[in-house]
Amino acid sequence: MTTFSEKLKSACQRTQACLCVGLDVDLAKMPKGLSRDTEGILQFCRSIVEATRDLAVAYKPNLAFFESLGPRGFEVLELLRQSVPYDCLFVADAKRGDIGNTSQAYARAFYGLLKSDAVTLSPYMGKDSIEPFLDYPGTCSFILCLTSNPSSADFQLQTLQSGERLYERVAKTAVSWGQGKKGEIGLVVGATQAQFVKDLRVIAPETVFLVPGVGTQGGDLQSVLKEGRSKDGFGVLINVSRQILYASNENDYADAAREQAQKLVKEMKAYF
Amino acid sequence: MTTFSEKLKSACQRTQACLCVGLDVDLAKMPKGLSRDTEGILQFCRSIVEATRDLAVAYKPNLAFFESLGPRGFEVLELLRQSVPYDCLFVADAKRGDIGNTSQAYARAFYGLLKSDAVTLSPYMGKDSIEPFLDYPGTCSFILCLTSNPSSADFQLQTLQSGERLYERVAKTAVSWGQGKKGEIGLVVGATQAQFVKDLRVIAPETVFLVPGVGTQGGDLQSVLKEGRSKDGFGVLINVSRQILYASNENDYADAAREQAQKLVKEMKAYF
Repeated sequence: MTTFSEKLKSACQRTQACLCVGLDVDLAKMPKGLSRDTEGILQFCRSIVEATRDLAVAYKPNLAFFESLGPRGFEVLELLRQSVPYDCLFVADAKRGDIGNTSQAYARAFYGLLKSDAVTLSPYMGKDSIEPFLDYPGTCSFILCLTSNPSSADFQLQTLQSGERLYERVAKTAVSWGQGKKGEIGLVVGATQAQFVKDLRVIAPETVFLVPGVGTQGGDLQSVLKEGRSKDGFGVLINVSRQILYASNENDYADAAREQAQKLVKEMKAYF
Repeated sequence: MTTFSEKLKSACQRTQACLCVGLDVDLAKMPKGLSRDTEGILQFCRSIVEATRDLAVAYKPNLAFFESLGPRGFEVLELLRQSVPYDCLFVADAKRGDIGNTSQAYARAFYGLLKSDAVTLSPYMGKDSIEPFLDYPGTCSFILCLTSNPSSADFQLQTLQSGERLYERVAKTAVSWGQGKKGEIGLVVGATQAQFVKDLRVIAPETVFLVPGVGTQGGDLQSVLKEGRSKDGFGVLINVSRQILYASNENDYADAAREQAQKLVKEMKAYF
């Protein structure tokens, strides 16, 4: 079976870029003319996918926005999953993390039912909480390592007695969990912390990095591409959400989204 | 509005105990005779609630098991929520943690839509990821601090340069987040780590502890009750799941569950 890394590499070669479009659908921010309900959200997401499918390597819905829709949320997510083309990856941004049999249930929900290619997970509970996800071949479980929000400093940047920072320990440990498993381990590394991306590449030379925080959050695309790619020149997935989704508030939102995606892909091309 | 702590105290006085029944419904472990689908799960959970409602102070469904049911999962959870009596608390064991607007969406899902009294949350992304939950009065956001699984040692027990362990830093920091907010902060403290419960009580003398790990996971009920209660003699919620849910594999499962709950309440009574 094709590994996640191989699928990512093909998609990067196809687009000459590594753009992941984050589907963070905030009802309050959706363009005018769309209904503020599950139908409107599905229509919005499908239009964005349709407008960017030749430019994106992946789509990343954030589960929170679907969960906040109540019972129909998961159904919308399943319909959305079916709308993502076969040559693009589907990343469920879930940030889950629980123990043993509970973790198995989450893995079943995201890899089994939803057929995601990747899921984001929280490392706080350790190996037990991640292992069940590694039983699914062709997938990548992205562990939160260094996130792009200001309060990532609360714990992630704390220095341990060994001299490492917590996020470095998380990177090393998480990479070791993936050895010899069916599914891969990836790391979430915020672009707003570009100064750390280089160091993380030394710790994890072959691991796929999922990089949020470019665009609205202020991350620097160029330095992430320069420092963040893995040994083979790929291995990085740059997520942009708001800059693409909310490029226009009018009914030309799909065209405006495409324009932003094209701009980003153009910037990325020099590195692929 | 009544605070979460006050509601908990009333429920503890009513039952002379602090039993939280964990609704971790594994399809593979459900008693014989129940259908292996959403209807069966709902019937099972409702029977357990009915059989233990005068003994329990709270019910804690783990979201993973409901999510793994697909679209109908959230609906079953809403129906289950309606079956929990008004004098018992409803704790959504979600272990979520995400940033800003995403976190707001999760808070809306669990406190707004589902009307939970409490939610469990992961601290890894820091204050940003918790704050939106603190806008809901009468609620308690339980932060994972020291969990009951073996690999909690991977990160939670790491010593920081300051000499504290990570879980201690999480406890101190999380407690500070709750100051002056509408909702309370609580801590998840595994019973299998009873040696640490005493120290955490010093760090957080008035915070509610949600304690999993008693029973099947081997935690010691007596020492948790001795060391774990807050200054007013309450402030602790002891969760037991499997020992109650799977007390019998036959159609007397509700009676068997009640018997186990009675046994636990009897052990707790000496402390209330």
